[in-house]
Amino acid sequence: MTMPSPQPGGVPLQHTSLHQHFDRVRRLSLSLAAPLTDEDCQVQSMPDASPTKWHLAHVTWFFETFILERFESGFRAFDPTFRVLFNSYYQGIGERHPRPQRGLITSPTLAQVKRYRADVDERMSALLAARSDDAELASLVTLGLHHEQQHQELLLTDIKHVLSFNPSHPPYARRWPIGAVNPQALRWHAHEGGLVDVGHDGSTDGAFCFDNETPRHRAFLVPFEIASRPVSNDEFIAFMDDGGYRRPELWLSMGWDWVQAAQREAPMYWQRHGDCWMTHTLQGLVDIDPHTPVCHLSYFEADAYARWAGARLPTETEWEIAARALSRPASVHDNFIERGAFHPVPSAVHGDAQPVQMFGDVWEWTQSNYNPYPGYVPLPGAVGEYNGKFMCNQFVLRGGSCATPAGHVRASYRNFFPPDAQWQFSGLRLAR
Amino acid sequence: MTMPSPQPGGVPLQHTSLHQHFDRVRRLSLSLAAPLTDEDCQVQSMPDASPTKWHLAHVTWFFETFILERFESGFRAFDPTFRVLFNSYYQGIGERHPRPQRGLITSPTLAQVKRYRADVDERMSALLAARSDDAELASLVTLGLHHEQQHQELLLTDIKHVLSFNPSHPPYARRWPIGAVNPQALRWHAHEGGLVDVGHDGSTDGAFCFDNETPRHRAFLVPFEIASRPVSNDEFIAFMDDGGYRRPELWLSMGWDWVQAAQREAPMYWQRHGDCWMTHTLQGLVDIDPHTPVCHLSYFEADAYARWAGARLPTETEWEIAARALSRPASVHDNFIERGAFHPVPSAVHGDAQPVQMFGDVWEWTQSNYNPYPGYVPLPGAVGEYNGKFMCNQFVLRGGSCATPAGHVRASYRNFFPPDAQWQFSGLRLAR
Amino acid sequence: MTMPSPQPGGVPLQHTSLHQHFDRVRRLSLSLAAPLTDEDCQVQSMPDASPTKWHLAHVTWFFETFILERFESGFRAFDPTFRVLFNSYYQGIGERHPRPQRGLITSPTLAQVKRYRADVDERMSALLAARSDDAELASLVTLGLHHEQQHQELLLTDIKHVLSFNPSHPPYARRWPIGAVNPQALRWHAHEGGLVDVGHDGSTDGAFCFDNETPRHRAFLVPFEIASRPVSNDEFIAFMDDGGYRRPELWLSMGWDWVQAAQREAPMYWQRHGDCWMTHTLQGLVDIDPHTPVCHLSYFEADAYARWAGARLPTETEWEIAARALSRPASVHDNFIERGAFHPVPSAVHGDAQPVQMFGDVWEWTQSNYNPYPGYVPLPGAVGEYNGKFMCNQFVLRGGSCATPAGHVRASYRNFFPPDAQWQFSGLRLAR
Amino acid sequence: MTMPSPQPGGVPLQHTSLHQHFDRVRRLSLSLAAPLTDEDCQVQSMPDASPTKWHLAHVTWFFETFILERFESGFRAFDPTFRVLFNSYYQGIGERHPRPQRGLITSPTLAQVKRYRADVDERMSALLAARSDDAELASLVTLGLHHEQQHQELLLTDIKHVLSFNPSHPPYARRWPIGAVNPQALRWHAHEGGLVDVGHDGSTDGAFCFDNETPRHRAFLVPFEIASRPVSNDEFIAFMDDGGYRRPELWLSMGWDWVQAAQREAPMYWQRHGDCWMTHTLQGLVDIDPHTPVCHLSYFEADAYARWAGARLPTETEWEIAARALSRPASVHDNFIERGAFHPVPSAVHGDAQPVQMFGDVWEWTQSNYNPYPGYVPLPGAVGEYNGKFMCNQFVLRGGSCATPAGHVRASYRNFFPPDAQWQFSGLRLAR
Repeated sequence: MTMPSPQPGGVPLQHTSLHQHFDRVRRLSLSLAAPLTDEDCQVQSMPDASPTKWHLAHVTWFFETFILERFESGFRAFDPTFRVLFNSYYQGIGERHPRPQRGLITSPTLAQVKRYRADVDERMSALLAARSDDAELASLVTLGLHHEQQHQELLLTDIKHVLSFNPSHPPYARRWPIGAVNPQALRWHAHEGGLVDVGHDGSTDGAFCFDNETPRHRAFLVPFEIASRPVSNDEFIAFMDDGGYRRPELWLSMGWDWVQAAQREAPMYWQRHGDCWMTHTLQGLVDIDPHTPVCHLSYFEADAYARWAGARLPTETEWEIAARALSRPASVHDNFIERGAFHPVPSAVHGDAQPVQMFGDVWEWTQSNYNPYPGYVPLPGAVGEYNGKFMCNQFVLRGGSCATPAGHVRASYRNFFPPDAQWQFSGLRLAR
Repeated sequence: MTMPSPQPGGVPLQHTSLHQHFDRVRRLSLSLAAPLTDEDCQVQSMPDASPTKWHLAHVTWFFETFILERFESGFRAFDPTFRVLFNSYYQGIGERHPRPQRGLITSPTLAQVKRYRADVDERMSALLAARSDDAELASLVTLGLHHEQQHQELLLTDIKHVLSFNPSHPPYARRWPIGAVNPQALRWHAHEGGLVDVGHDGSTDGAFCFDNETPRHRAFLVPFEIASRPVSNDEFIAFMDDGGYRRPELWLSMGWDWVQAAQREAPMYWQRHGDCWMTHTLQGLVDIDPHTPVCHLSYFEADAYARWAGARLPTETEWEIAARALSRPASVHDNFIERGAFHPVPSAVHGDAQPVQMFGDVWEWTQSNYNPYPGYVPLPGAVGEYNGKFMCNQFVLRGGSCATPAGHVRASYRNFFPPDAQWQFSGLRLAR
Repeated sequence: MTMPSPQPGGVPLQHTSLHQHFDRVRRLSLSLAAPLTDEDCQVQSMPDASPTKWHLAHVTWFFETFILERFESGFRAFDPTFRVLFNSYYQGIGERHPRPQRGLITSPTLAQVKRYRADVDERMSALLAARSDDAELASLVTLGLHHEQQHQELLLTDIKHVLSFNPSHPPYARRWPIGAVNPQALRWHAHEGGLVDVGHDGSTDGAFCFDNETPRHRAFLVPFEIASRPVSNDEFIAFMDDGGYRRPELWLSMGWDWVQAAQREAPMYWQRHGDCWMTHTLQGLVDIDPHTPVCHLSYFEADAYARWAGARLPTETEWEIAARALSRPASVHDNFIERGAFHPVPSAVHGDAQPVQMFGDVWEWTQSNYNPYPGYVPLPGAVGEYNGKFMCNQFVLRGGSCATPAGHVRASYRNFFPPDAQWQFSGLRLAR
Repeated sequence: MTMPSPQPGGVPLQHTSLHQHFDRVRRLSLSLAAPLTDEDCQVQSMPDASPTKWHLAHVTWFFETFILERFESGFRAFDPTFRVLFNSYYQGIGERHPRPQRGLITSPTLAQVKRYRADVDERMSALLAARSDDAELASLVTLGLHHEQQHQELLLTDIKHVLSFNPSHPPYARRWPIGAVNPQALRWHAHEGGLVDVGHDGSTDGAFCFDNETPRHRAFLVPFEIASRPVSNDEFIAFMDDGGYRRPELWLSMGWDWVQAAQREAPMYWQRHGDCWMTHTLQGLVDIDPHTPVCHLSYFEADAYARWAGARLPTETEWEIAARALSRPASVHDNFIERGAFHPVPSAVHGDAQPVQMFGDVWEWTQSNYNPYPGYVPLPGAVGEYNGKFMCNQFVLRGGSCATPAGHVRASYRNFFPPDAQWQFSGLRLAR
């Protein structure tokens, strides 16, 4: 969350004004909610997930609380009760509504939350117009937009979880098939290791980053190889058919307990129908496509698969170095949220020279714990609660997914989840 | 649930046709939901409670499944998936959607459920018109209407629970104050005991009853006295001020564990504001009125209060005999749901001759476990699951509440809840 | 626990002095612990059960606290820390050591507890010798002895539970077979009902009783029949073979949840070995004998069996009236603890005139909740915590078991456990 | 657990034969159990801890299963049931007795376990005498002895936990005070960082190591400083007095939940007595000494303290590099188990040149997750389950404690526990 540059940025900001970018990001949130009923937007299906309505309000609260309250003259809260209701976890802002009860708040309604958004948007527009050269404002707005983009992804993964409880698997989107099958054999790309620099690099990663990507620092790598593409569904089915979920020697001790506690035998959202596997997606219940990257894996499953395959998960440093070696960074040509697939697509051949699907499609579990970089310092104040305090019992995922907005991720971007989390679009890429 | 009479009935049916009664009961359900938003109707706040939308659908499912499916020629289900979604607990009907996940079903929406209601109502109307002299049909319709009335009460207690999570305590209704303060000193009414007959009596209780009120049977009672009115808020506050929640000798062992586990110190929904107590109601957050019957007590609290007061709870037989001695049975003049108070009202003097508020206002805990009467036989088939299978670890409450439809209760009516349940309008009347 | 008679008594006291009886009961406790190692006596296998060492100490604490402290001049506690450590649930005596942690107290050791017993016995002997005509002392001593007898039974059921965790099922006793097989067809004995008197009757039940057996009072019974003997293992196996554990319509709703939560399919302690059933007993792992009363049933299982058999459980009043009609009361000729079987024995023919095995062998679940009799008043003071505060969510069992000391039970004796308890020697006798 | 050397070893083995070392280690286990009663040795106080009796048997099982069964001709198990009963977590060996039920196994008794030890010792002696030049045998015996040393430490921390439940805090040892107070001001020792080699180094760390210390590999370190001694009790009390346990900004998010869930306000085993703090130790209940290293901290507490102090925890690499810079490695002069203090001692001045108490006294939490070193490969077979499968959600601790046998730890030694574990002798040393 360091914002070193006077020109706020990130990839998609390079050719648009901040004001235009603000409008675009804010509109995307509303368009993601558009296919949903008022009832859909109300529901919270587990403590880790939040209602759509809450996401729409919380990201607005962020702009109101961290920007309008500070920069707007004569600031008055849209509704003072929202300060508590839509605070996620910022102890520095005061009391918060309990997370597991977000779905119990029926008032404000979705319609009222949309009015809240319109009101804050209008005031933000006025502010951005009036103070277009205020670098500090620009930095905070950029932070707020990246924050909203993170919640756009969560909005999709959370509503996918809600819809999974409905026996009829109502589709959120209707655009299927989403990609042509084009099987690609797995190849290995070698890296020679040695001293490398890791962490956010403004020259290639864009101007913006979160504080957990800093400081850029030196590390020593032993030589390694990384796979040309993510593990696919048919590869994972081979693991399952080989007794993968029944062999304790393939699992971490904690992972084996996790398998047994819920009698797990397939990735989340998979259902066996006769001899075939189907899966709940945002496009409804569909057949498993063999050549699509497997997703909704926990760390435990990713780790067990890698052990079964005689390989391992990459470290986050290895992943980052491999991503930096690509000829182009993340772009709108990858399978990000803008494509509207809302699901990974089959791996396609892009030539042998370099790995594919490093960005988009599925987040890739690494074997690295989410820890501070050497010399890491959280931002002062409440926004400093963004990252550092979660550095415990979480693993780093890299590369973004089909639910990530284009322009949000980069080579240095660190996502993180506990090892049992499955409801994100999380898969894996092998290393050795 | 025995339906012995060819003329379907119950108190309110005596002067109306069954068809008119059907229309009236069905309309009341919709009018109870009218003040609520789509979001309000979606939410389930605890496993024991259900969403408003679910209540509206489930009672309709009852008519479709137990009546239309049997009596309508060329029956086709409105939506076959509803058979599972809106089955509450009838194992005989097949698979059921898990109770704690009722709030996660966003589809059908509230609008769709209303269309479901309209469709079933239309088909039921046609059936009732065509077969107005079919006694078996009439019996089942009567059962279905009493079933819907039970869910009307639950709809209110469940939505009250939902709204309690909102820090702003949005009112469901706006009619306050709901009764004039008219303090009445507690008096005792003596009964001489001896051999009595208990259970449903068609000549005074109306033609309809549930199976758990039968068979009418003989019992022996020792002499007892019963209080002239329910325990009031100021009396309960005296118990609290005397350390009632801190003195283990006043509590059942299991009740004391219950107090300590959640550090309880007041009835459900009470909040201390400075020196005063306020309470969440369906009319919003209001001051505690001293002369209103205390409610939202668990059995544990009712029992502890009675012990502190040097008295005890009545048995259900004592309560029934006292209720039969009243000069008039339950009527629309009592504080039932039709009054629109949705909260007990202060006790008023009605002369010294007999107890007041036996019917309406608050359900009254008895010391009787919910057990079968001698010779009790459940109805055959799936409707036989209505009552008997819950006869374990529940206590009987008598008399109805401010959320009970007039005409639904009678002297022999047996309601039942586990001893820790608080979210019903449950209070107590002393005996000795 | 009323002690109305100046001559303390109970059946076994009629022909012995209280002093002799004291010595005999106290010795029995030690002899029950004799086959056990120090390790056996230390362990607590679940919160509901207690270590043997704790039982031996707690019953001694009862004499020290309620008798010596009051009657002994110059009383000094054997060890002041024992007052807390060995208080079971008497809030009136002050702080108590947490029940689930009884097995964690390694000091005092078993040897020290035996010294504690010897010291208290010596002082009690002196007191009994010096004040042999003190009726109040005699009453309390009698109460203390009945209390110790209850713990003798618990000592056996608790150590049986401990030993069940050992894969080698070490036997506590070695006396097998314990009874000759002598199958008896089930017959029914009719009672005409009407007004009856229930509760403790000094003329037939002995002078002593607990307070929960009082006051003797009148009740009205409809005619009923009761089975000639308890349900046997082969009858219960027929229930199991008929899908008893897989048919929800046979179970209380709460019972069905209980079955499913633990995937139950047989009584506690049963193990399938190939085509046969074996069971863990205090005599080691043995074959199921078809003609022995089934035991270690929960209330749920007893109730489901009765429903399957087209019958029901008796009420406690019915059971008591049937027991009073026997030609002889409970006696040492029944299968009580003194016989040393520590397991029910096969039912034997005693003539057709009356039911067999009403006393001893297995406690018989009744359908009656454990509630106060009309006019029940607990004793004042801490000993009043003995019974009344447990009158919630428990069912009454009648008749004693193979682990009950002879002379401890009578027709009016009320034992009680929650409906899911299985570790007592609990079976059932049908009624209809 | 690599055993590369033909001469089995480790520090204490350099001047003794393996046979002598075997005898010494085995005797120490028995002498640690000597102060305990049979009852003490039976009890398991939480699922994470094991009974003393189980420790004594399990380490013996290790020799019997992994060595005698393989090397002894005509091998017969001492008791075949022990194979299951005393297997800790080796899936490769087959079925295991459930960990939380270890305290419920009363048979074999302690006396029988001692006979088991004697039998295995005798057979091991014969084997060691007969095959004194078998390198593979020597390697496995060395592994078994290090395994037993780990359980010697656990035996002490587990019995300390058991004794803490006794209100009288019976002392395990009676040697108090255990060290003279000699306050030492905290100083900082700087390291310049750069490329370093980490992991086991046979030339300085002794011949033996566990597999998780390998392979030795290169890493890059930024410059850092490390504190001259562990954090002391008076420093930690200053944190507490400054509201340390009440300020969420000092804690990891997960740590703050942990604090609130149990209302924590001091380290484990601390009790407030009036204005003073006392603590449960293996020497009984004693006053907190201000100059002694604070211990029984969770990772959460260590991390929060470091943040409050404006510093941080060292990484495990930093710790190892600092330890390698000491003029002497771990030795019997440190406060290890052989000293008999069984508690950390006050920090004493050893000159300014280098940190003190790196070895012994308290394990020091590092900020490093317990992860595999680059190129790590577990041993093949069941002994390969020793380390790798626990590499999830655990943090590394370094340096050994007052309960660690001298000669067991070294600079490369990696201990590991989950972040909420407190019952080990765990403290911290600051870095920055």
